[in-house]
Amino acid sequence: MTEKQLFNGADFRVSGSIWIENSNSSERFLGKGRIQLLELIKEHGSISKAAKAMEMSYKRAWDLINSMNQQANQPFVITQVGGKSGGGAMLTPEGEEAILFYKKVQERFMQFLTALDNE
Amino acid sequence: MTEKQLFNGADFRVSGSIWIENSNSSERFLGKGRIQLLELIKEHGSISKAAKAMEMSYKRAWDLINSMNQQANQPFVITQVGGKSGGGAMLTPEGEEAILFYKKVQERFMQFLTALDNE
Repeated sequence: MTEKQLFNGADFRVSGSIWIENSNSSERFLGKGRIQLLELIKEHGSISKAAKAMEMSYKRAWDLINSMNQQANQPFVITQVGGKSGGGAMLTPEGEEAILFYKKVQERFMQFLTALDNE
Repeated sequence: MTEKQLFNGADFRVSGSIWIENSNSSERFLGKGRIQLLELIKEHGSISKAAKAMEMSYKRAWDLINSMNQQANQPFVITQVGGKSGGGAMLTPEGEEAILFYKKVQERFMQFLTALDNE
């Protein structure tokens, strides 16, 4: 936008972040960190490994997963206890869809920011 | 977006925040809090009163003002020392323009979010 020229010769850009929240309570549902956590659970098949990769405590990861699982129609992450592999975690189809949905919204947001910068 | 229906009968919305930053250093230039501070300085003619209204320390308010003043071509806030009124602060025309610019970008962002929600 041309008004940016008012602000010196310096190069400014519009930046931002978006998330999905409950319309009534404003409780966070999906955001950048939660989506990254889902992707890492998918990659590692383990909540603790995913948490470690994000330098996040196991408790924090569980809190985020619980928040998503409880707000969603179907849980996004399910865990298996014991078994040959010593248990693990996996995404449900709804968890996969949540990732795709967020990425679609994020892509639209990037397009919006680019369009704004090119005005 | 129709995919939101995947997430339960609950009512979800896309929300977010935007700001203006330096393209190279990513240093924040304008954001919601900084604009509110400018508006309150305009209203009160005083940095300390504006800071108090935001429940912000005087030092924090000064740091934000300095960051804007140093990045902008012309300072956004100027102060007067002493005099009958015991000094005070006021916005420059560039400070006023910064408010209008941010509000324009913010309005476009709100339109984007609304359009997204109505798809």
